[in-house]
Amino acid sequence: MDFVRRTTTVGSEEFVPQAERIATFDQDGTLWVEQPVYPQVIYGIARLAELVKEKPELKEQEPFKTALGGDLKAVAALPMEDLVKILTVTGSGISVGEFQEEVKRWLASARDERWKKPFTALVYQPMREVLEFLRSSGFKTYIVTGSGQGFVRVYSEECYGIPPEQVIGSANRTTYGYDRAGKPFLQIEPKILLNNNFAGKPEDIHLMIGRRPVAAFGNSTGDQQMLEYTKSGGGVRLAMIVLHDDAEREYAYGPAQGLPPSNIGTFTQELYDEAGKSGWVVISMKNDWKRLFSFDTP
Amino acid sequence: MDFVRRTTTVGSEEFVPQAERIATFDQDGTLWVEQPVYPQVIYGIARLAELVKEKPELKEQEPFKTALGGDLKAVAALPMEDLVKILTVTGSGISVGEFQEEVKRWLASARDERWKKPFTALVYQPMREVLEFLRSSGFKTYIVTGSGQGFVRVYSEECYGIPPEQVIGSANRTTYGYDRAGKPFLQIEPKILLNNNFAGKPEDIHLMIGRRPVAAFGNSTGDQQMLEYTKSGGGVRLAMIVLHDDAEREYAYGPAQGLPPSNIGTFTQELYDEAGKSGWVVISMKNDWKRLFSFDTP
Repeated sequence: MDFVRRTTTVGSEEFVPQAERIATFDQDGTLWVEQPVYPQVIYGIARLAELVKEKPELKEQEPFKTALGGDLKAVAALPMEDLVKILTVTGSGISVGEFQEEVKRWLASARDERWKKPFTALVYQPMREVLEFLRSSGFKTYIVTGSGQGFVRVYSEECYGIPPEQVIGSANRTTYGYDRAGKPFLQIEPKILLNNNFAGKPEDIHLMIGRRPVAAFGNSTGDQQMLEYTKSGGGVRLAMIVLHDDAEREYAYGPAQGLPPSNIGTFTQELYDEAGKSGWVVISMKNDWKRLFSFDTP
Repeated sequence: MDFVRRTTTVGSEEFVPQAERIATFDQDGTLWVEQPVYPQVIYGIARLAELVKEKPELKEQEPFKTALGGDLKAVAALPMEDLVKILTVTGSGISVGEFQEEVKRWLASARDERWKKPFTALVYQPMREVLEFLRSSGFKTYIVTGSGQGFVRVYSEECYGIPPEQVIGSANRTTYGYDRAGKPFLQIEPKILLNNNFAGKPEDIHLMIGRRPVAAFGNSTGDQQMLEYTKSGGGVRLAMIVLHDDAEREYAYGPAQGLPPSNIGTFTQELYDEAGKSGWVVISMKNDWKRLFSFDTP
């Protein structure tokens, strides 16, 4: 609130014109739950189960065998390249329209393991309030996610009030072509165009927005460069990072501050120390958030 | 005006919700003058003249030798790959901030050959009015240009009232790094990430906006796919294409309709015929525009 007051008070030395009020948010682990594994990977596994009906040879190949095994912890332990393979085989070779329809269909029926809720219900209520507060103060809010931007764009408006053109994410190349009726369509290729993690985040922010954010929010090592880039601009800047230290209400993982290590949303002690040195605000889920989800009793 | 009335009248069957009112504009030849050669190439030549002081070996190499020869018609006759080489050697190996400063400096002093005006004065007044009319009707206006998006973003707000995040253009990869003081910066690499011409236009519109435009404006074969893509969406759609048939007030080139052929902004007879078949409105510069530039007497 102090940051917003300083940047939006006319006449303040730290005033930021409305057009430059850009705030960027990581998604998985920052805006919604990312454990036991990123929701897009759970979507990929569901699609894979359908895909093997046509391509049974995938069943015996890794990482698809592990993915189909039903143990999300085993999937979470796979290296990132393997998770990308699952997303590529299930998210390419179709048109962008078909992909959107598939994701919509899945979102309508899929439930998470723990809360038995739609994934779109697992948005952190305090972050939703931050998004709304910033927008009501003239900030333009963007998602900057390591997940696929085509995936996140399907629900970003409904979940976060963020339109598709304000979602920056990992993206495959598409190819423009024509169907049999001569109608144009875009085919998703099995080739990565943007890997929107680590240094890819500021690179893609520059590509898609062309302005440096004034505020940025993350929760893992994959967000470090975005927070650095934001914070190193002139004037007052806000960088915040969510520490998942609440095993009871959500999950606890780090390995920062002695929390259990995690392959998903890794938050190292180095990152924690960097936050202290660079003036990034660490949000303790356990201590700072009264209410996690909109369905929690306040 | 009929298109705007039909898409914005509440209760109309053809009503388009405000969030979906996306209008895309090619730049060179559609919003401003592109003859005798794209203004970014003229910028590239000016930078090249400085660059050869440090790298004199470039002077004897093509296409740099032709570029430095001072004959813009000879430059305009170069194949596109050669124009890209000129832009790459002068627009990479520096940070995005340095590039912006260079372009700003150049724009402030450079004058075009014919009107002796700053390039930013050579914006078509009727198109500026279209941009403003669409925006006042709730449309979000985007530039979708074959020129570099980093170049166009420097002046898009001033020239067209279009902010950097609404400029989609050809783009090189950037690399995130740190300077000697440890401050992050983005370096422009000599490697093309987006080639925003032909099929690249709808592909990049999908990447950057994630919605199909409702209206699109172009002037050459490089815009064909963007116009097709726009027009093939459901409901009422507007596609317009500028024919440069006014040698007296601007330039005349085609080769459509018997106009002289041009390597820059080629408008073929096939494209002209396609416009007729597909319901794209051809704008005759000579017959349809009363006043070309804001400095013309009305």
